[in-house]
Parts: sequence; structure tokens; C-alpha cells
Amino acid sequence: MKTHTLLMPLDMHLHLRDGVMLENVAPLSAYSFSGALVMPNLVPPVTTKEDVIAYKERIMASVPNDYFEPYMTLFYQNYDKAFLESVVDDILAIKLYPAGITTNSEGGVKSFDIEAMRPTLNAMSELDIPLCIHGETDGFVMDREAEFMSIYELLAQNFPKLKIVMEHITTKAAVDMLDKYENLYATITLHHLLITLDDVVGGMMKPHLFCKPIAKRPEDREALLKVALEAHPKVMFGSDSAPHPQHKKESCGCAAGVFTAPIALQVLCEVFDEFNALENLQDFVSDNAQRIYGICPEFKEITLVDLPFTVPESYSGVIPMYAGETIGWSIESVE
Amino acid sequence: MKTHTLLMPLDMHLHLRDGVMLENVAPLSAYSFSGALVMPNLVPPVTTKEDVIAYKERIMASVPNDYFEPYMTLFYQNYDKAFLESVVDDILAIKLYPAGITTNSEGGVKSFDIEAMRPTLNAMSELDIPLCIHGETDGFVMDREAEFMSIYELLAQNFPKLKIVMEHITTKAAVDMLDKYENLYATITLHHLLITLDDVVGGMMKPHLFCKPIAKRPEDREALLKVALEAHPKVMFGSDSAPHPQHKKESCGCAAGVFTAPIALQVLCEVFDEFNALENLQDFVSDNAQRIYGICPEFKEITLVDLPFTVPESYSGVIPMYAGETIGWSIESVE
Repeated sequence: MKTHTLLMPLDMHLHLRDGVMLENVAPLSAYSFSGALVMPNLVPPVTTKEDVIAYKERIMASVPNDYFEPYMTLFYQNYDKAFLESVVDDILAIKLYPAGITTNSEGGVKSFDIEAMRPTLNAMSELDIPLCIHGETDGFVMDREAEFMSIYELLAQNFPKLKIVMEHITTKAAVDMLDKYENLYATITLHHLLITLDDVVGGMMKPHLFCKPIAKRPEDREALLKVALEAHPKVMFGSDSAPHPQHKKESCGCAAGVFTAPIALQVLCEVFDEFNALENLQDFVSDNAQRIYGICPEFKEITLVDLPFTVPESYSGVIPMYAGETIGWSIESVE
Repeated sequence: MKTHTLLMPLDMHLHLRDGVMLENVAPLSAYSFSGALVMPNLVPPVTTKEDVIAYKERIMASVPNDYFEPYMTLFYQNYDKAFLESVVDDILAIKLYPAGITTNSEGGVKSFDIEAMRPTLNAMSELDIPLCIHGETDGFVMDREAEFMSIYELLAQNFPKLKIVMEHITTKAAVDMLDKYENLYATITLHHLLITLDDVVGGMMKPHLFCKPIAKRPEDREALLKVALEAHPKVMFGSDSAPHPQHKKESCGCAAGVFTAPIALQVLCEVFDEFNALENLQDFVSDNAQRIYGICPEFKEITLVDLPFTVPESYSGVIPMYAGETIGWSIESVE
């Protein structure tokens, strides 16, 4: 029997939603993670200091103790510097969505007009507020992320002091970008380490594995797995765990998102163990993020063990990845 | 108001299933088509003369009149010549499935051992029985058809007198093969003229557009559209209309298949009209197939008109393409 202990695990890309869904899913992340970067794509999106504070309060009210830190984000707009100064202590990052590219992103950026964005991005650089980006164009679904690389390059070159996080990367093209620009970082989800488009539509069609960006080709997954397993210093774990009610997944028009929060650490242990890389998992799920974002989460120690765990069929009506299946690792204790 | 008349339209790739489903869907094809090449992937598959005759009788019993000819197929196995001679008058073609590649194909070909297949394929050449192939490897979902081209080439070269039909082609790679080998032909579905992977998983995930082979890239669709609109002499319409009950489409593991039989001719008129190619539609939906297969369907005349038609939400529990939407052409009369 093998155990592995993780200190202050962090989920640097998480959807907690709001209302009843928030109350159902927040405790699942709070149980095993010290903190999470909380996405701002509510309806309407989080765009004011009051929104941030109120949403953080609703999150804290939904988790059973205070051992969980919701790192808050604003939904990107061309904010002025005075506003950013007023909110800098309440947020950890600003999240940019191209308009209409994913769930609740309608109010996002319609065109990457660098001159229009320059005052905001300069202020963010000065205030050291990282810019997190959902990097997809509106092109053909398999090309969207690769096509977005030129926008990452434009931003990285124009704002060399701005920390830019390429969120939930899915392609070798994005992995290759990490070593090209000092100020580009990335999060990687659990599911993109595990699946390709084959798993989504190669056999039966699997709505619970449908997400944006869509899972890509085998060579893309290999590239992601490589930098995750070696805990490349610019790569962080971000689950992009995205709960939807079952009826919105199993229907004529299935919503995008894979729900992994409650099983993420167990499956990461299984994957890293399989590749004899468990010693790098701490960096991938916490230390890299602490260094990149300059954060110090409260102490939490999770011990995992290689004992099988049968994943519930549903968590309050949300179907998790591996629902009903048995995974190889479980959580032994949380302190 | 514009009308367009089609004579003896043929659907050269159709799934009619069996039992209640057969009774529900066969009349829909029989209404607007003179005949259809009926796929043999029942459970168990159609592999004997008795199977063929009995299945044809069940089909005929399901359609309201005798103006519809089910052109029967056998499920490919390494049959001997004596058997093929005994069944040649009962079938129009033999359909080959790689094992496990799509719905009910478990009993298909496990490896393309040309020497093992040679006696059967030689006999088929001599008896002039076309070989219809679901041409996909078990590779990455977007590559499966392109990877299969080498097998088409191997077969086309080894059996130059065998008519080989590349079924439901979805790629430019397959289109390019048509002019390379005299004995290669192809069917094209309605949906592959209309959709790409973007329509399946680019926005919301659409289970009712999920099919095998999966819809490919925009440049693939363009290549298909070009040879369909010009009614390339080696290309035939084959809907691959594949009914599944709604619950098998909108679920955790959605079955592959788009149900288009009842709307195929209307939408083909709309597409060909849009591209000013209506004069080629007769070749695409009938004359090419009559020449390639050497068949003379019974007389049927369908007149279509460019009046809007609202597609039913469901046909006996099977959700058609464009369910609930309005298409631009309707059937005016059938004689």
C-alpha cells in the first residue's frame, strides 16, 4: 500500500457557479483543496468590486469551514486604473474571455484591439495583476487554440511585465509557447491529461467528456502530459471543473464542461504514480502556483492512498468524470 | 415559386433496422424514394440467403405499397463462390465493415488479409457483385478515413474488376481517390454535405448530428460538396440515414447516426438550388447509381417545390435532422 501526501493543493481554474449549484459543489473543492482561482463567468459576470466581495461571501457561506481560500477574479473588460487600484486587494487575477466562446462568455472581448486594451493591461502590469485567458478563436473547433497563439504572442510582446496565463491548454502549440515568452504561463486540467477527441466522439459520444476547449489529438495530450508530469515551472493545475445539471449534459444541445473537482487529486495521484512522477505532483498542484501568483495558502495536508475508490454516479445531480467507475487512489485523510 | 421534379430517386446507403423500428422508418423512405440499398448490420447480421429473403420480406411488409425496391446486401464474410452464386440474384452488393467500427459491426473484418479475402473478392468480381465498404481504421477519430485510403488502394489494385464503393465518404482524401482508380466509387450522405465537426461539438454538443464517420473539417466538406453538386459520375447519394430511439441519442453514451430519410430530398433540393446546381441533382440521386449498379427502378416521380416545410420534432420517437426547424423545400407530389 502506497500513500502520498500533498500540502496546500490549489485548483487554479475552477467554476463554482452560484446559488444552489454553488452550495452543492463548493464543499467538494473545499474538502480537498486549500484554495482555488474562481472563474467570474456568472450571469451577469463579476465586473465590480461589490460583485467580487459579494460572490466571495456567498462562496465562504457555502463551505463548511474556513480552510478554503477562494481566490477571486474579475471578468475582463477595459477597466481604468483607478478602478483596478480600488479592487487589487480583492482579486488575484482578471479572466479574459473572447465573446461567446464558452459558457456565459457573451460579455467578453469582441476583438483584440491592443490599443484599446493598452491602458488596462498597462495598469494590470503595474499592479501585478495576472491576466488569465481562455485562448480560443472562433475558427474550426480543432484549430481554435492553435490559431489563438498569435494573440498570446501579441500580448506577451506588447506587455512583457504582464503575467499571462494560458488557461486550460489543450495543444502542443500552447505547450511550445511556454518556453518562448518569459511572461506566459499555463494551467492544465485533469481531463486534458487523460482524454483526446477519441474519448469524446471516437466510440459512443460522451457528453460528460464534452468541454471547451475540446480535447485534441493524441500528440497534443502527450505534450500536455509531459509538462505536467515534469511539473514544468510555468505550469499549474487548474481543473476547469465545470458543473452542469445532468439534463443540460444529456440533451439535444449539451453544455460544455467536465466535472472533476471531487476526484481530481485522487486521479492526479493515479496518473503521476503510473508514470513514476509522484515526486513532481506537489509542484504541479501547489508550489508552482504559489510561486507564480505569489500566494501563501493556509496549511492543509491531504494524504492519498492507492486504494480503489468507486466514484459516485452523481453529486447532487451533477455527473462527475468516471461516474460509477472505480479509480485507483482515494483520499485517506485531510488535516 | 420554383418546382423541381426527380425521377426514381435512390438512396444507396440506408439503415432500415428491424421490428418496430423498421415498421416506423421504412414507409418514410418508401414514400419519396424508388429504392434503397439496405444495410445488413442487423443483430445478428444478414449473412445467409435465408436472412436476405426474410429481411426483404419484412421490409416489403412494412411499406404501404410496392413502389419501393429494397436492394439487399449481405454482411461481408469470406464467402465461397458456390454460396455467392446461390445468392447473387437476391442481393445487389456486399457490405464490408471493419470489426467494431460502428453500430452492430462486431462481426466484421478484423484484418485486411488480402490472401484470405482473395477467393471471395475474385468470385464477387466474376459475379459482378459490388463491394461496399465502411472505410475507417481504428485510429484517431479525425484520421480514420484518411488512414483507410491505403486499404482502398490495395483492394482497387488487387481486384481491378471489382466495383468498390467507398461508403459515406467524409474527406478530401477519399474524394481524391475517385479519379485515381477506375473501380472506386463513392456514396455521400446529406449530412456530410452540410456539417463539419464544428456543428457536432463546436458550439453545444449535438448528439443528433453525431455519426460515423464523424463530420470532418471545412475543407473536407467543400470537397464533398463539389463532387456532389457536379454529380461526379462515380458519386451517388446514400443517406446513411440511421434511426436510433431518442433515449439512445440523448444519454451518457450516444449512439452514432443521423436520421435524414424523411427530409433528404427536400434538403438536397435546397442545397443544389442554393448553388444553382439543380440540373445535376437527378444524376446525383438516381442516374449515377442506376448506371454504376446496373439497376432499373420502377417509375416514380417526385415533384418538390421551394415552399417552407417545418420538420416534425420526432418521427415515432426518432429525432430527425432539423427537428422542429423550417427547411426551404417541400415535397409537392409523388406519382
